[in-house]
Amino acid sequence: MSVTLPKGFAAAGVTAGLKASGKPDVAVVHNLGPSMAAASVFTTNRVFAAPVKWSRHAVADGQLQAVVLNSGGANACTGPEGYKDSATTAARVASNLGLIIDNVAVCSTGLIGVRLPMDKLIPGVDEACAALAEDGGAAAATAIMTTDTVPKEAGVTVGEWSIGGMAKGAGMLAPGLATMLVVLTTDADLAPQQLDEALREATRLTFDRADSDGCMSTNDTVTLLASGASGVAPELGAFTAALVDVCQDLARQLIADAEGAHHEIAIEVTGAASERDAEVVGREIARSNLFKCAVFGQDPNWGRVLSAIGVTDAEFDAEQLDVSFNGVMVCRGGQIGDDRSLVDLSGRQVTVTVDLHAGKAHATILTNDLTYDYVKENAEYST
Amino acid sequence: MSVTLPKGFAAAGVTAGLKASGKPDVAVVHNLGPSMAAASVFTTNRVFAAPVKWSRHAVADGQLQAVVLNSGGANACTGPEGYKDSATTAARVASNLGLIIDNVAVCSTGLIGVRLPMDKLIPGVDEACAALAEDGGAAAATAIMTTDTVPKEAGVTVGEWSIGGMAKGAGMLAPGLATMLVVLTTDADLAPQQLDEALREATRLTFDRADSDGCMSTNDTVTLLASGASGVAPELGAFTAALVDVCQDLARQLIADAEGAHHEIAIEVTGAASERDAEVVGREIARSNLFKCAVFGQDPNWGRVLSAIGVTDAEFDAEQLDVSFNGVMVCRGGQIGDDRSLVDLSGRQVTVTVDLHAGKAHATILTNDLTYDYVKENAEYST
Repeated sequence: MSVTLPKGFAAAGVTAGLKASGKPDVAVVHNLGPSMAAASVFTTNRVFAAPVKWSRHAVADGQLQAVVLNSGGANACTGPEGYKDSATTAARVASNLGLIIDNVAVCSTGLIGVRLPMDKLIPGVDEACAALAEDGGAAAATAIMTTDTVPKEAGVTVGEWSIGGMAKGAGMLAPGLATMLVVLTTDADLAPQQLDEALREATRLTFDRADSDGCMSTNDTVTLLASGASGVAPELGAFTAALVDVCQDLARQLIADAEGAHHEIAIEVTGAASERDAEVVGREIARSNLFKCAVFGQDPNWGRVLSAIGVTDAEFDAEQLDVSFNGVMVCRGGQIGDDRSLVDLSGRQVTVTVDLHAGKAHATILTNDLTYDYVKENAEYST
Repeated sequence: MSVTLPKGFAAAGVTAGLKASGKPDVAVVHNLGPSMAAASVFTTNRVFAAPVKWSRHAVADGQLQAVVLNSGGANACTGPEGYKDSATTAARVASNLGLIIDNVAVCSTGLIGVRLPMDKLIPGVDEACAALAEDGGAAAATAIMTTDTVPKEAGVTVGEWSIGGMAKGAGMLAPGLATMLVVLTTDADLAPQQLDEALREATRLTFDRADSDGCMSTNDTVTLLASGASGVAPELGAFTAALVDVCQDLARQLIADAEGAHHEIAIEVTGAASERDAEVVGREIARSNLFKCAVFGQDPNWGRVLSAIGVTDAEFDAEQLDVSFNGVMVCRGGQIGDDRSLVDLSGRQVTVTVDLHAGKAHATILTNDLTYDYVKENAEYST
């Protein structure tokens, strides 16, 4: 259940000393082939970090042989020197492993606006390359953690082929913008365009719908590497379905580990005129601070849900909106519904269901509550 | 400095018993004429309260003779019965004062999804009508307070005519969605269309740019009543400028009283390609929870400012962005600028200046920080 689950991959995680804590901070995932097909999706933030710029360039031809990742520094807003640092890091991996430099992607996570300590990073890269192992997935997953409390790994095997994955990030709740970094691996034999298509669909349905605090990172990167080592070329629909499962598993782990969160909230929007409408409504609710505070306070405050819905352009009639908290329909037809005292929000899992009564489309957005701990964590991070 | 500053107005504020606290909760503002010209702007939330529906209808012909306001209940999401309650309230004022029912606007603020206790409200309306006085502005301003800690009044006199105003709402930070209610009065003699034009411009530049927590109420209403009692018809530009001053004064008071806030933050965006771009960028920063937590923590975290700018579609080059906190340019050209330790965020007033270097337009958004007290207030409100 890691990036080394599929055949044809080696990984490693080591301690380079980038983190004050002295915990592991550099990881490498190496695609041993025979294929080097790859695809990536990146943050859409127009202020993006040097490693994102580098990796966009590296993956443009649909081929990657390795990904090198570091925690302990985002290398964002660091100018031309920062970009040079990313290139130097990739070059070092290429040199160590005998790869083409343009086939090495780079991911960084940590504080924005601080140069990476290259005197520590480069020896760490060397060490990680030397430590690459076919059972190194867990070590890699640990080395990319920042404020994550647990490493995040997932995997699935379908007949002859597998998909593995690792992720870091505390659901965008984490400080330093909680860069979400994900590396996915497969030994299925698919072309870059197929991987790209599957990855975009999977991220759209999973990571894009995990919205812990509405803040978009400068560094988010999801990369899929295919070794082709199984020798099997699965049907794209089946592969995509499996990829969605792995990504959803990781997305749930991100939301579950969101810093400062006391509740994991699933906002299920049904009866929408379109999937886009359902997503827009769910996201607006997920981003309402008043709603998020109410859940923290174990208050099934459906008025705050309705007021969030009301600022969207989704198709609905305000007098037909139904809202349930953990199965109790506290708002029916846009008015007071069942007794709110029947709702129990003391558990960590909360499901808010909204029926727009405007169609048959649906979508679920995952988010968290807004807590003292969130404020504490994010007020005290860089000071 | 109240709604009774201009000639031709009477006001009152009384205690009807809608609030558990036993504080004043019903206000009436009566336009004694000779003109009854009026204009209003309302929340754009598609889930809007019964009094908003009623008042939109009432002001549609550009004429109002009175506004009746209650705290202690929003009368939102209360269905046809709630609408009938608003109509009944207006009718009672009309009956007491000998007005046309369609010339009475209604404003309500408080919890969503709860019917108003009409058995208490109607006697309160009677009492308020009986108490109307030409020096009753302060009492009215007090009666519309919810979680406001101070009443909010403003006024300006320009030659022969004046504008007065009162507001309630804790900058949209307050619980229960912090309905913002504003009544503005003037003895200038202007036509409804002129009032409408002036009011829309003033709200666009002031209240619309006060964004404490990004949550839009179901009840927001700003109403301008003109008595014409000065006998003077000022030039519209001069009137609009004075109205902007009064509204900005009230907007600042709303942000200053925002519940749980420890800082009042002015986000000044300059060098924008358009005023719209400046506003979009300022609002995106104002709505970043990570940025708001950083200010609470007295952390001039410019990385969070840049990452917020980066999700907008405004015109800018990420490598030309300058960001200053209280005058210290901590980010210059999209990179590390002056020493962040020079920034002092210990005071209540914080100014964040962003230069997009893309043009000459500018706009300032007022907001607050995100604090433990905000979470506490909004987690514990209705439980």
